[in-house]
Amino acid sequence: MPFQHVKDILSGKLNGNRRVKLRGWVYLKRDLGDLQFILLRDGTGVMQTVARKGVTNPEAFEKARKAAQESSLIIEGSLKKEKRAPGGFEVLIEKIEIVGSSDNYPLAKKSHGVEFLMDNRHLWLRSPKQRCILRVREGVVDAAREFFRREDFVEVHPPMLTSSMVEGGATLFQVKYFDRKAYLTQSSQLYLEALIFSLEKVWCLAPSFRAEKSRTRRHLTEYWHLEAEEAWYGNEENIKLQEKLVSFICNKVGENYQEELETFNIDPKRLCTVKPPFKRMRYEEAVSKLQRKGFNVKYGDDFGSREERALTIDIKKPLFVTNYPIEIKAFYMKEDPDNPGTVLCNDLLLPEGYGEVIGGSERETGYEKLVKRIREIGESVENYKWYLDLRKYGSIPHSGFGLGIERLIMWMLKLQHIREAIPFPRTPDRIYP
Amino acid sequence: MPFQHVKDILSGKLNGNRRVKLRGWVYLKRDLGDLQFILLRDGTGVMQTVARKGVTNPEAFEKARKAAQESSLIIEGSLKKEKRAPGGFEVLIEKIEIVGSSDNYPLAKKSHGVEFLMDNRHLWLRSPKQRCILRVREGVVDAAREFFRREDFVEVHPPMLTSSMVEGGATLFQVKYFDRKAYLTQSSQLYLEALIFSLEKVWCLAPSFRAEKSRTRRHLTEYWHLEAEEAWYGNEENIKLQEKLVSFICNKVGENYQEELETFNIDPKRLCTVKPPFKRMRYEEAVSKLQRKGFNVKYGDDFGSREERALTIDIKKPLFVTNYPIEIKAFYMKEDPDNPGTVLCNDLLLPEGYGEVIGGSERETGYEKLVKRIREIGESVENYKWYLDLRKYGSIPHSGFGLGIERLIMWMLKLQHIREAIPFPRTPDRIYP
Repeated sequence: MPFQHVKDILSGKLNGNRRVKLRGWVYLKRDLGDLQFILLRDGTGVMQTVARKGVTNPEAFEKARKAAQESSLIIEGSLKKEKRAPGGFEVLIEKIEIVGSSDNYPLAKKSHGVEFLMDNRHLWLRSPKQRCILRVREGVVDAAREFFRREDFVEVHPPMLTSSMVEGGATLFQVKYFDRKAYLTQSSQLYLEALIFSLEKVWCLAPSFRAEKSRTRRHLTEYWHLEAEEAWYGNEENIKLQEKLVSFICNKVGENYQEELETFNIDPKRLCTVKPPFKRMRYEEAVSKLQRKGFNVKYGDDFGSREERALTIDIKKPLFVTNYPIEIKAFYMKEDPDNPGTVLCNDLLLPEGYGEVIGGSERETGYEKLVKRIREIGESVENYKWYLDLRKYGSIPHSGFGLGIERLIMWMLKLQHIREAIPFPRTPDRIYP
Repeated sequence: MPFQHVKDILSGKLNGNRRVKLRGWVYLKRDLGDLQFILLRDGTGVMQTVARKGVTNPEAFEKARKAAQESSLIIEGSLKKEKRAPGGFEVLIEKIEIVGSSDNYPLAKKSHGVEFLMDNRHLWLRSPKQRCILRVREGVVDAAREFFRREDFVEVHPPMLTSSMVEGGATLFQVKYFDRKAYLTQSSQLYLEALIFSLEKVWCLAPSFRAEKSRTRRHLTEYWHLEAEEAWYGNEENIKLQEKLVSFICNKVGENYQEELETFNIDPKRLCTVKPPFKRMRYEEAVSKLQRKGFNVKYGDDFGSREERALTIDIKKPLFVTNYPIEIKAFYMKEDPDNPGTVLCNDLLLPEGYGEVIGGSERETGYEKLVKRIREIGESVENYKWYLDLRKYGSIPHSGFGLGIERLIMWMLKLQHIREAIPFPRTPDRIYP
């Protein structure tokens, strides 16, 4: 007899009053003496099963009694409708096999401290909430992929090990690469810029690394970075592409993951109603707004979590902040000819206090200007030789951006901390498990 | 007037005898005095354009004459059918704008040494052949994704930074992680094993790293690793899944990338006819075959590139080699109860001498057996604490495998060296560009 999945049974693909065979893990156990309830979870859902003394054969009843939380079981029995069971069905156990026992499951208690949960991340991932996050994460990535396919982008795979830096040397992880040093990439942007000269529009989803000691609720040392680079796009087209992408992802997840959203008490409307255009605010307006809110911030200061939180705590739609001062942004951003001293760039801030999820800009295309900027930040021009070649041989206007997918997921599901948005989070204090 | 893409014009979506506006790079230039031919490439294809003295206005003619290889241009003109042009169309230039000049393009000559090409990888990627490889690479990844979606696998994202090892410490890259040491992952398998207890069937495409000094034509220090892990699958089901996956990818690329395959003189049939079942051979048979071929190899020796080449040089279908001796395989592989001393594993070797592309196995599920194996290889059990938990709390039979996508691409396109199968290859001697 073949195995069935819980989801197929609960979705009505299989009718009631028939024999079923399930396999999975004991999610919850209720021992009422003559009644042994086992909530069995497989990769697709949770099914209530029950052994009744006097009805279930004694051997099976005894095994049901013994089966502890998270032991793995194979259960055969008859399916019947049962209003009081989650999903409306129940399996009356006839046969049961304990595949793998589970004594003293560490996460059996209802609540645990965060450090304990993180130490047991490999087990915590089994919980229904964590499973929902993993599924929504797949949905986010799938939606992004569909979006880029529709927009004629080519998916590429940039290198993780590099000999040069992108976002400044302070946050680089160093790797012993045989007899020399290498670094873990902070962004694939420079490589994507090379690739647009071949493929015009490219995107990637790949890890990026930041050796920042920030212990905030929105920083990881290793995160998955969705980056895109677009030949012939100006700053305005780049911003429009970003709001279209974020809306597309939100809408898709809102449509296709209603059950998962429910687990987090999220109304799908929250995601289905995200639509372009997003609001925009120039950096200087943002500074004024922060000053009015009592922040001790002046023109030329960069924004951190606190500032971004203040800018977005009261809004419901994502917000572009544009035209940052040239001094506080990366060397490759193009100066705005209409607003000298500022660059053609944007940060996209998520509402409700979540803050930055995307950084984007039009790229500087002039060879001499780039060399000047690289020198100004105290870098060696030699380190950027190959990158500068892109401005020597058929330079073109282009733009691009990078989105941190964990931050997007965090906002979509209103997670308290980014560490739950990735299966095995890495923070300054944690590389285990 | 909006821009058109070469592909849309050549595919007949646009009719001849009309005005077009193109942008791209000078792929090839022929200066015949009164006739200036420019082969213009964009991200989608190559179009012949021509300026004629006396017909084209003098200013545009002069710019066409000046436009050097790889300069970026915007060209407006009239499209007409021209049998002698590649693709059957030609554009008579009316207006031309040089967007970015290109003096002394380094790859202008027809042939270059490999090191020179690799030093200029950021430019070499513009060549039609390299662009084809990038597109086929996307096709391989897309096909894999479609396959796993159909098979109800969930896509996940494992960590790159780890505190433990998978394939042995000798090939680990070390990372300075704040005040301590971390390592770059060699395989995501252990993490995928944790995730099947939540999602049942999972897969990932992510970088893996091997600090091997192998300077062969099939080794990279950083490669993209497609890994899958399947709850409740035995060795046989695992092998069947692998041959189904590889066939699916080959068939899809064979169907959808005929133009790219043509560039490499590959008959799409080569890929469209790949079908399960693949041939199988037990390790001990493989040893005998090698001995008959004059190899100095005995039972218990591992196979390298030379041995795998000899085993596959004369065959046309992928070959599974199974039942390797337990001593030469990883600690997590399950011993074959019917053939003690060997493990329930397979390597999948590609034909025509290409060799290993997949390693797979059923995993050992017993806690005590795993502990024993970990001790035998001289590792600390403490390092594997979280992994061993998976055998303590509801252990289940499961299997999985890992496929190196660059090796698959290399074989599909008959590439001479793996370095062309990835945009920015990393080898012991190279982390630039």
